[in-house]
Amino acid sequence: MKLKNNRILKLATVALVLTIVSCKEESKSVSVTNSKQTGSHPNLILTQESVAEIKSQLGNVPVFDATLAATQKDVDLAIQEGIDVPVPKDMAGGYTHSQHTANYKNMQKAGVLFQLLEDEKYAIYVRDMLLEYAKLYPTLGRHPQERSYARGKFFWQCLNDSNWLTYTSQAYDCIYDWLPKEQSDYLNKNLFRPYADFLSIETPKYFNRIHNHSTWGNVSVGMIGLVMDDEELVNRALYGLKDLDIDTNAIDNDGGYIYDKDGKAGFLANLDSPFSPDGFYTEGPYYQRYAMYPFMIFAEALQNKKPELKIFEYKDAVLLKAVDALINLTDADGEFFPLNDGQKGMSYYTASLVSVVDISYYHGNKKPELLSVAKAQNAVQLNASGLAVAIGLRDGKEKPFLKKSIELSDGANGDEGAVGILRYNDSNNTMALVMKYTGQGLSHGHYDKLSFSLYENGEEVLQDYGLSRFVNVEQKNGGGYLKENKTFAKQTIAHNTVTQNETSHFNNDFEIGSNNHSEKYLFDASNPEVQIMSATETNAYPGTNFHRTMLLVKDATVDIPYVIDLFKVTSEKPNQYDLPYYYFGQIIATSFKTEAPKSLTPLGTKNGYHHLWKETQSQAKADNIQFTWLNNRKFYSITAATTNEDAIILARIGANDPEFNLRRDPSIILRKKNTKATVFASIIESHGDYNPISEKANNAYSSFKSIKVLLDNKKYTALELQLKSGVSKVLILANNNASKEAKHTLKINDKNYEWSGSYYFK
Amino acid sequence: MKLKNNRILKLATVALVLTIVSCKEESKSVSVTNSKQTGSHPNLILTQESVAEIKSQLGNVPVFDATLAATQKDVDLAIQEGIDVPVPKDMAGGYTHSQHTANYKNMQKAGVLFQLLEDEKYAIYVRDMLLEYAKLYPTLGRHPQERSYARGKFFWQCLNDSNWLTYTSQAYDCIYDWLPKEQSDYLNKNLFRPYADFLSIETPKYFNRIHNHSTWGNVSVGMIGLVMDDEELVNRALYGLKDLDIDTNAIDNDGGYIYDKDGKAGFLANLDSPFSPDGFYTEGPYYQRYAMYPFMIFAEALQNKKPELKIFEYKDAVLLKAVDALINLTDADGEFFPLNDGQKGMSYYTASLVSVVDISYYHGNKKPELLSVAKAQNAVQLNASGLAVAIGLRDGKEKPFLKKSIELSDGANGDEGAVGILRYNDSNNTMALVMKYTGQGLSHGHYDKLSFSLYENGEEVLQDYGLSRFVNVEQKNGGGYLKENKTFAKQTIAHNTVTQNETSHFNNDFEIGSNNHSEKYLFDASNPEVQIMSATETNAYPGTNFHRTMLLVKDATVDIPYVIDLFKVTSEKPNQYDLPYYYFGQIIATSFKTEAPKSLTPLGTKNGYHHLWKETQSQAKADNIQFTWLNNRKFYSITAATTNEDAIILARIGANDPEFNLRRDPSIILRKKNTKATVFASIIESHGDYNPISEKANNAYSSFKSIKVLLDNKKYTALELQLKSGVSKVLILANNNASKEAKHTLKINDKNYEWSGSYYFK
Repeated sequence: MKLKNNRILKLATVALVLTIVSCKEESKSVSVTNSKQTGSHPNLILTQESVAEIKSQLGNVPVFDATLAATQKDVDLAIQEGIDVPVPKDMAGGYTHSQHTANYKNMQKAGVLFQLLEDEKYAIYVRDMLLEYAKLYPTLGRHPQERSYARGKFFWQCLNDSNWLTYTSQAYDCIYDWLPKEQSDYLNKNLFRPYADFLSIETPKYFNRIHNHSTWGNVSVGMIGLVMDDEELVNRALYGLKDLDIDTNAIDNDGGYIYDKDGKAGFLANLDSPFSPDGFYTEGPYYQRYAMYPFMIFAEALQNKKPELKIFEYKDAVLLKAVDALINLTDADGEFFPLNDGQKGMSYYTASLVSVVDISYYHGNKKPELLSVAKAQNAVQLNASGLAVAIGLRDGKEKPFLKKSIELSDGANGDEGAVGILRYNDSNNTMALVMKYTGQGLSHGHYDKLSFSLYENGEEVLQDYGLSRFVNVEQKNGGGYLKENKTFAKQTIAHNTVTQNETSHFNNDFEIGSNNHSEKYLFDASNPEVQIMSATETNAYPGTNFHRTMLLVKDATVDIPYVIDLFKVTSEKPNQYDLPYYYFGQIIATSFKTEAPKSLTPLGTKNGYHHLWKETQSQAKADNIQFTWLNNRKFYSITAATTNEDAIILARIGANDPEFNLRRDPSIILRKKNTKATVFASIIESHGDYNPISEKANNAYSSFKSIKVLLDNKKYTALELQLKSGVSKVLILANNNASKEAKHTLKINDKNYEWSGSYYFK
Repeated sequence: MKLKNNRILKLATVALVLTIVSCKEESKSVSVTNSKQTGSHPNLILTQESVAEIKSQLGNVPVFDATLAATQKDVDLAIQEGIDVPVPKDMAGGYTHSQHTANYKNMQKAGVLFQLLEDEKYAIYVRDMLLEYAKLYPTLGRHPQERSYARGKFFWQCLNDSNWLTYTSQAYDCIYDWLPKEQSDYLNKNLFRPYADFLSIETPKYFNRIHNHSTWGNVSVGMIGLVMDDEELVNRALYGLKDLDIDTNAIDNDGGYIYDKDGKAGFLANLDSPFSPDGFYTEGPYYQRYAMYPFMIFAEALQNKKPELKIFEYKDAVLLKAVDALINLTDADGEFFPLNDGQKGMSYYTASLVSVVDISYYHGNKKPELLSVAKAQNAVQLNASGLAVAIGLRDGKEKPFLKKSIELSDGANGDEGAVGILRYNDSNNTMALVMKYTGQGLSHGHYDKLSFSLYENGEEVLQDYGLSRFVNVEQKNGGGYLKENKTFAKQTIAHNTVTQNETSHFNNDFEIGSNNHSEKYLFDASNPEVQIMSATETNAYPGTNFHRTMLLVKDATVDIPYVIDLFKVTSEKPNQYDLPYYYFGQIIATSFKTEAPKSLTPLGTKNGYHHLWKETQSQAKADNIQFTWLNNRKFYSITAATTNEDAIILARIGANDPEFNLRRDPSIILRKKNTKATVFASIIESHGDYNPISEKANNAYSSFKSIKVLLDNKKYTALELQLKSGVSKVLILANNNASKEAKHTLKINDKNYEWSGSYYFK
């Protein structure tokens, strides 16, 4: 069904059941205010007023003008290539999938161009493509690819169909008044209303969830409802389907529950529940990024058409807070921390985040910090929001968006744990320490309680593996999740946290995981030299308590901040505990002796262990080990307290992976065997660099001599850090009293310590 | 022996055996033309005339001014830190090594600053440091670290001592006339002359070689000889030590011969022999880069003091050609191809290359192309050469240095093979295909006849492993070569060329390797759409002939150039042949079935095979295989002709490596078993990209359907390439006739081919 330009007229004619075809292909630039322009459209994302305002500013708002020019270039190229509406066939990454995706993006842009540039060719492009879709739609059953729990029409899953409808609604709104009423009636009746019903009534298990999928579903139905002034659809979008006969135990492809146990559904319910009061979205930043566009674009449409809803004030302005939270969940390069399922490299430069930032700026309080993000994006949404941003930028109003240390609570009420981020920034260095002590995170959650990752200058130092998937790479399972996502990426051993007895947290049970969450203990970033966060997890393994405390320290003794990692474990019975650190790069030195095995065997048989090759296993035979590596021309060290019997395993991902789906990344695993109560205590440093041009190694050695557990009991845990300079430091944590005011006195090795607050560090 | 500023006077006094100490510490800025300025120094790298000229230009030559300011900042900081001349103790990367290295660099800079800025504090700094060295020198035996075949005094190897003397000679020249004659006599007698004798007469096995070590040795002795007007030393430098009683079978740490079999030695002999007439240095670019500084700096000194030698015209101006050759041996980022022993990341941005480029510009024909390299370096040598470059840049005279396809012959007479480089450059893409068909390359040579590497936009696509060493990283064997350099990096299986029967070329025998070289067959880059290079190797395995032909093709059928690799093998008896391609990154798809083994075992027991883990082994079971991977967000494919019985091994470096010295890089190895005559025929493509922000995979699939060997006999080898577009191409190579004029007719599968020249491709 690939159409060439010169065939458009003919095919459009053939396609139409209607008799009136008043196309104006010849007229290249006709005023929009022609005889058909009698209604009130556009009124969704663009409005008649904002179009007029934008036109008056064109040529005088550089970023807006540049975005408009780039958009025009894209769409002109698409028009030149001709309309192509293929019969759906392929998975993500395949031809028909990619073409339908391109189509909705091009239509949305063409609609905007028609409004702003008054060139009818853009309206004609949208109309002709919609007519093709209207012709195709009635011929389709569900998509032939059967992998999804909710198969779509144009795409293999309803989710992508909702993407289509969300964007296409905007295009349709832009040409609605330009179309002869007969044509819009035709499209409403034969394409859009049936399509909205298909995505909702006919697919309740997709539409009626608390999940990013349903947000897209709700919004797409709501958007087209607003365009068609179809109140039934709008209400369905806002409040969900009612009185369904449903199976609350049904699960989706990712193993997540389909229906909320309390029967909540719809756009507003999806604002209530996955978002915490801080704006953290429980699925994690990668999916928050994905969900924010439908949330914000529908909110903007609602603000335009139903301002009485005051949607941007809903739940104490949670949508605006969510945008701030999302920006805070990025590294120094603007890339999202890949908590839970997250593909690395995704960043706030993605097109949908341009809209999100602009809408947040315009409908929030025009926070000048958002302008600096928009400036980095170097593009705006082509409507009133984007215009406001472009004007702000033109007038030099931006202020830096300083990503500071922050704790973002999880849970609808903010009482289900949190993500803690400790940051250090100076002119030479930025460090970000990200600790996850949240709830499960719905179906995209990982079994990684109290895990963390560490970033320096936007590069990963100790990584979160992220997801196992190559989104839209067709050769890799049609671009979908790989089986290793479940067998490795979600497993506890894939994360920088403790695995007990080679079994993942909650024994990989999604239901138990979803019923529990970690607990905040302490977050204090008030002292820039010593920042601390601390959390507990008491449900991951029944009978075992975890308490992890992490400090980011930048004091006079070091040039670059270092991390203290204190992971206290207590259990009713002896267990094996494994704590991996997933580093990158080349091992430079180990304080422990390593041997080369004759052959490599997997570290275990299940729960992700079967995906790790054991490159070597050593016995600590010391009360300290040190491990130094080189990556990205920088030297790093981990210094860890050990007992003689502790094992150190150097492992590499890749076992039992016949299709080479996993990255061959390394880790160092600290193993404590047959232990009830123990403390993992480590120092993690970035301490030097290597220049291959001058061939100089600068500070190739750790600054630390040792770390030692001075004391560990129910009330207190104390560590001593010895620097090579001779300086030593003591950290004491009150394990059961996070009060800032509490006074403590404690004697360790005949020395008295007195302090106020939850910890001592000197 | 760390001195603080305020202790300099006292210590200098104590240190001096001489009675006259006419220090002028207080005078911060005294004219150089004081009463002591009666001699003719400086006359080595700076001259009295050039100093006057430079002074007249200061403030008017931006790059020179900026380099001078940066140098002053460095040296002022060093002066502030005080003089530190520690008793030698450490290996490379250790404290005393690094300090002595810093000292000679700082002295050289301070000497120049004294001349150009007329601030006596710089002369005082050099003098006081030299006096420290003069005091230390007589107390030293050879360096306590016993690893080198030629242990130095201040450093573990004489090589570094020669670095010291080469730089320090320049500093000494700058303050020579400023020093009281009694002090220069003292330094000549107690430090410099004995030191020069130590590095030559006392260490002939270091001084009298054809090797980069000896070049440094010769130059250091020659430089100090020129400063002291000591003709004996200068002649020793130029012509070597005569009438030595030597063992011509002695070898050095790297396994190379110490003495040339013909008894050649000295600076001029080192110009004759390791350099080919094209300026290629047989050890490879990494060591050429290292040797070029002493070659060029001594040549410049000779030109100043002994212009009658016409050193820059020697051997048809081989020094100037060598600089051009060296620049051509870099990727798009200016990094040297790591042929033979070469550490990756070294580039023409290294400080010594600034001097080399400037000297070549000034003493050559002021080639404007060299200015563009100097512009990228953004620094100049602080003498007449650097001034000329800075003036050229100021006046906008630079032209781009276009790295074109080039063949650089090896061997003193240019008849011992070559390195061939085929390049493609357009505004979006640069590709460089580097094939090595040279001689052994002295002690730094690898057993890698007919190997190649491929670069795209300055990134490695198919790598040469380079060396196994972390230069100046003390933890890794004191910064020296690791044992894996010999057991893996030099071995044939570590390279993208054919290994027969799991044995390296020449059976790893350095003597046999050194007596042989590959032969050029064909190099033709005249057609930008189809560039070709071809070479043979008949000695690597007795009774077996190799003939490899590589094409870089950019025609209308593709957006990005692709490589055709035709490796023809004929042997008197059946053998096993392995051809690896060392790629990077993530496997995306394989046409052959891969299985996950229960455990990993090494690929073999010796010759580098024991360092490779066999991740999977498959049988081709087809007449073609295809292998697609993703690296640096780009998609690549190899399509290779196979027989059903061929094996495909996916391997990873890292077995039998207890200290984790090797990088865990992957390779795909094509294996043909029990075969006499065969052809490896592959297409290597870069064909698409992945954007993790838009999550779009663009051209994720190879453009090729297959490659097939149509014909292979003694006279001709013919391949057919099938594109998915339906286009097909035929390549026919005349195996024994490289003549451009020869006419050929050939019938294959009933089709007649007629062409002129050595190959047909259509």
